[in-house]
Amino acid sequence: MIGRFLSLEGGEGAGKSTQVRALAAALEARGIPTLVTREPGGSEGAEAIRGLLMQGDVQRWSAHTEALLFAAARADHVEKTIRPAIGAGTWVISDRYIDSTRAYQGVAGGIDDAAILALHAFGSRGLLPDRTFVLELPPAEGARRAAGRDGSGADRFALRDENFHVAVAEAFDRFARVEPDRFRRVDATRPPAEVTAALLDGLADLLP
Amino acid sequence: MIGRFLSLEGGEGAGKSTQVRALAAALEARGIPTLVTREPGGSEGAEAIRGLLMQGDVQRWSAHTEALLFAAARADHVEKTIRPAIGAGTWVISDRYIDSTRAYQGVAGGIDDAAILALHAFGSRGLLPDRTFVLELPPAEGARRAAGRDGSGADRFALRDENFHVAVAEAFDRFARVEPDRFRRVDATRPPAEVTAALLDGLADLLP
Repeated sequence: MIGRFLSLEGGEGAGKSTQVRALAAALEARGIPTLVTREPGGSEGAEAIRGLLMQGDVQRWSAHTEALLFAAARADHVEKTIRPAIGAGTWVISDRYIDSTRAYQGVAGGIDDAAILALHAFGSRGLLPDRTFVLELPPAEGARRAAGRDGSGADRFALRDENFHVAVAEAFDRFARVEPDRFRRVDATRPPAEVTAALLDGLADLLP
Repeated sequence: MIGRFLSLEGGEGAGKSTQVRALAAALEARGIPTLVTREPGGSEGAEAIRGLLMQGDVQRWSAHTEALLFAAARADHVEKTIRPAIGAGTWVISDRYIDSTRAYQGVAGGIDDAAILALHAFGSRGLLPDRTFVLELPPAEGARRAAGRDGSGADRFALRDENFHVAVAEAFDRFARVEPDRFRRVDATRPPAEVTAALLDGLADLLP
């Protein structure tokens, strides 16, 4: 039996990494073998590319170069981690995936969505998740939560200005409205346990 | 006055790096400000990506991932190094450029030339050299020369098998025949000074 592929998306501080772990635990408790992964990264090569992407000055890479690096990292992640796991019957939950590139480098960075998707078709044969959750939080609240972390949120993307984060939030919202079969929007202002319950509700149709 | 952009291509051991330096010296002697650069690399970010590309196991990256990483490195190289230099009136000579990706990841790696060129259009706005020289050497001779180096030639690409290097040589030859205005083929079996003279002959129409 083939595993399912789930992704969690959203701006900084929306609780993605917490919810990825909580959702994995909930699935494992139902007897479903689950693999937690993240982007950029998730394979040895992609983690090396992540180092180039997340460190250094905000202006280190142009939006186009950044989009190519994300596509390269994702191609390696898909080939080395995601496809083998799904093929072995494991469910994969990724903290960010293609929709983050569409939102950050695409909408907020000024690159056509069609161009981002063409890179994805080239590198990863266009693999899309069976379900993508957008954890929705007002951008100002996300910035407040991310700033409250002890430095771990202060990567090149967290440091962008507020307009950037508003554009990202609007982009995720739009993606979700355009592809209602794949996306589920989840209110991330609620307590974590309620958010996890909402995620489980949102994949009820996929559960065995 | 805008500078010219030249690239040198060819298989391993064809003498590209020697000829890039010799050609730069010859241009400087004619009063032409010249910048020598190389791919992958040629800018701070692209050199970091070069580290990922040139090290590790031959099978570290798939051909598609490799093509994306080369496109990312080239985008940074063009933006940060090549375009500013040309704009300032400097001639740029690059040891390898897009045609190496077309030959190695494209023809020898099995990726469509149109797809490689689409990545180049995306990342580098399709910038092509004013002149590209192919240093031609029988592949067996190139392998012999590269093997004679004290380890410096033994990167991930030098270690491929002979069929791979034959395919690369045939690819460069074909590119040159298809685009005779941009390309000049140079017999690299001759003594270095004769090869340099042939390069200068091959750009006589571009010289001020």
